[in-house]
Amino acid sequence: MSLSLSCYRCGERYDDGTRVRCDCGEPLWVDTEPTAFSWGDCRDRGGMWRYEALLPVDRPEGVARAAGGTPLVRSPGLDDAAGARVFVKDEGENPTGAYKDRGSAVAVPHTVATGDDVVGTVSYGNMAISTAAHAASLDRECVVFVPERTSSVRLELIAQYEPTIVQVAGDYGKLYGDALDLSEHLPIDVLVSDAPTRISGYKTALFEIYESLSPAAPDVIALPVSSGGFASGVWLGIRDLERAGLIAEPPRLCLVQTATADPLTRAFEAGETDPTPLSPDETGDTIAHSIGNPDPPSGARALAAVRDTNGAVVSVTDDEIRTAQRRFAVDAGFCVEPASATTLAGVSRLADRGDIAADESVVLVPTGTGFKEMGTGEAEVTTETVRRDALRDQLESLLAP
Amino acid sequence: MSLSLSCYRCGERYDDGTRVRCDCGEPLWVDTEPTAFSWGDCRDRGGMWRYEALLPVDRPEGVARAAGGTPLVRSPGLDDAAGARVFVKDEGENPTGAYKDRGSAVAVPHTVATGDDVVGTVSYGNMAISTAAHAASLDRECVVFVPERTSSVRLELIAQYEPTIVQVAGDYGKLYGDALDLSEHLPIDVLVSDAPTRISGYKTALFEIYESLSPAAPDVIALPVSSGGFASGVWLGIRDLERAGLIAEPPRLCLVQTATADPLTRAFEAGETDPTPLSPDETGDTIAHSIGNPDPPSGARALAAVRDTNGAVVSVTDDEIRTAQRRFAVDAGFCVEPASATTLAGVSRLADRGDIAADESVVLVPTGTGFKEMGTGEAEVTTETVRRDALRDQLESLLAP
Ligand SMILES: [Zn+2]
Ligand SMILES: [Zn+2]
Repeated sequence: MSLSLSCYRCGERYDDGTRVRCDCGEPLWVDTEPTAFSWGDCRDRGGMWRYEALLPVDRPEGVARAAGGTPLVRSPGLDDAAGARVFVKDEGENPTGAYKDRGSAVAVPHTVATGDDVVGTVSYGNMAISTAAHAASLDRECVVFVPERTSSVRLELIAQYEPTIVQVAGDYGKLYGDALDLSEHLPIDVLVSDAPTRISGYKTALFEIYESLSPAAPDVIALPVSSGGFASGVWLGIRDLERAGLIAEPPRLCLVQTATADPLTRAFEAGETDPTPLSPDETGDTIAHSIGNPDPPSGARALAAVRDTNGAVVSVTDDEIRTAQRRFAVDAGFCVEPASATTLAGVSRLADRGDIAADESVVLVPTGTGFKEMGTGEAEVTTETVRRDALRDQLESLLAP
Repeated sequence: MSLSLSCYRCGERYDDGTRVRCDCGEPLWVDTEPTAFSWGDCRDRGGMWRYEALLPVDRPEGVARAAGGTPLVRSPGLDDAAGARVFVKDEGENPTGAYKDRGSAVAVPHTVATGDDVVGTVSYGNMAISTAAHAASLDRECVVFVPERTSSVRLELIAQYEPTIVQVAGDYGKLYGDALDLSEHLPIDVLVSDAPTRISGYKTALFEIYESLSPAAPDVIALPVSSGGFASGVWLGIRDLERAGLIAEPPRLCLVQTATADPLTRAFEAGETDPTPLSPDETGDTIAHSIGNPDPPSGARALAAVRDTNGAVVSVTDDEIRTAQRRFAVDAGFCVEPASATTLAGVSRLADRGDIAADESVVLVPTGTGFKEMGTGEAEVTTETVRRDALRDQLESLLAP
């Protein structure tokens, strides 16, 4: 199944269903024809398939059809912490609890349509869980490449869908290139983080934000950034809507990194177009383990998205992330993973330094639910213990002002 | 804030915002006026608030607005296991991962509107998590009554929203009555499992099923049943749509219980209108801990729903639940909690005994995500370990037919 692919940087075009990168080295994405698109085209469909006209595959059955369609809600309880008017786009409300399902919902059916027997991915987190689920739904074999010594907790989440799990010994960072090589030479399609069909799926998050706020529009959209794939998809969505005449002024894309691995923040601050890969001694541990790619394959494209939209890249510490995660729960009722909490922490930093004004509309995109990582039994929890027959008296004093 | 309440059994009406039960002893629900309702009324809204015209509160901001709007998808991979044409209504794609959010999204804003200072609930599971999240979103204090010796894993999930957690010593089953008493005499509204405003929220799941299948309609809807609250809400939804002229023949409601605590199955099989509460020696442990209420407060109403729709109640064992949970993941890509997997196991039993035909459309409603209970690190997972430089050769032999 051939696709019309193009390079954001050099403009080169390819008619190919399997290519991932341009000869210039940059990642490709899928072109569609949005000039005639309007919101009225999609009102009778649910989820991300409202935008089927702008996607490179036909609407599938099964779990892929359940992807996207996540709510966007005004969350005034977070305004103080953010320093702006907050909307939350809760990507945790996807079938496997993360925005990755939007990408898998397009990429896995596309792989099946191209005739490759086996679907693969390189991930030990949300992308592995999502890819394995979507392959299971289409009755395809799946191979997941994870690093050696992946925790049993993570393996359990992936293994429920019964893919083949391969622990790879050696430099896991090099597996992106290996994956492209395996896809070319073996009957497997290893869907990397920025496979063009995944990026097509991610743009539907941007469409949903605009459709639900229409005729208003957000000033800022804040995303966590790791490989740069999601930011690329959101940027592609902006470009589609600009061509459709549905966006006058693009939203400022604000990308947030963990301070323990932030090649994009460093490049942004240095005014560079291409990030410099970080060496192991330049990175550290973080609670935001879903992000923190030292050599992001779509890093330069993410930086281009930020420049094109007059946005920013900012880094936050684990302490800021913990505080933000608590605010999401306690002030807004959303359980988000640490990588997602970075959005609030990052916006707060940008507002503090005057880059976002208090009356601006900011869409925070928590990309994954926190429920996958909770219930470890390790947290300290304070409770009262009361005998049933003393309940009313005790509660009365508990409730007394 | 007064509500128009009525009793399904004796028809008595009450104009009251706080009453839960009829003088005849049965639980009440909220009446609305659906005769003029049509699907065209709701097309410009998202989530469960599409049906605001049939709900007793105005659409709130925050996490309540993110409730409902879950996908309904055809899942042919489950047809063999079910013995029918399967659709999945994935209630795990709610803000706190369970259908409970539909109830909390109506009940908590209603409590706030009535002026009660504090929101409470009696639960150590999904209802506690949901109620605490919705109270946090509206900046209300919340008190959660859990049984003594609740596991630290459960407490952690609830505690993230920072409610007051009260462990109650004594007969936890009696807390339903205590909750009504506390709500009457103290400045707290303890939202029990079948509070009328919760039931109003639950009916939106039925509306969504019908709207997305329209003009087709399901033959069977299968739900897990515990307190009977959700089944009551789905039945109320059917009654609303019947009055609106949008349902010709009601779907058969099939309720599934765990065999370790199944007072409703026993009553159904004995042809009784009221379940007999089970004593502790008539119940046992189960992996489906979200269900299994030995004395369901809306049990008689759930049985009435089944009779009214020509449905059934059936019990399944933990082994059947484990098999069904695996099928949801491996054949359909959905991660569901054990209580939700009962739906597939129950339908399979009903199909085996000829109560459901192979060409009938069955909607399975997994009521909660499995992700809250996974990642314990206790599952046995099989993996291959491969050196990076041997990856291509090893994968080639792995992929060989
Ligand atoms: Zn190029
Ligand atoms: Zn009555």
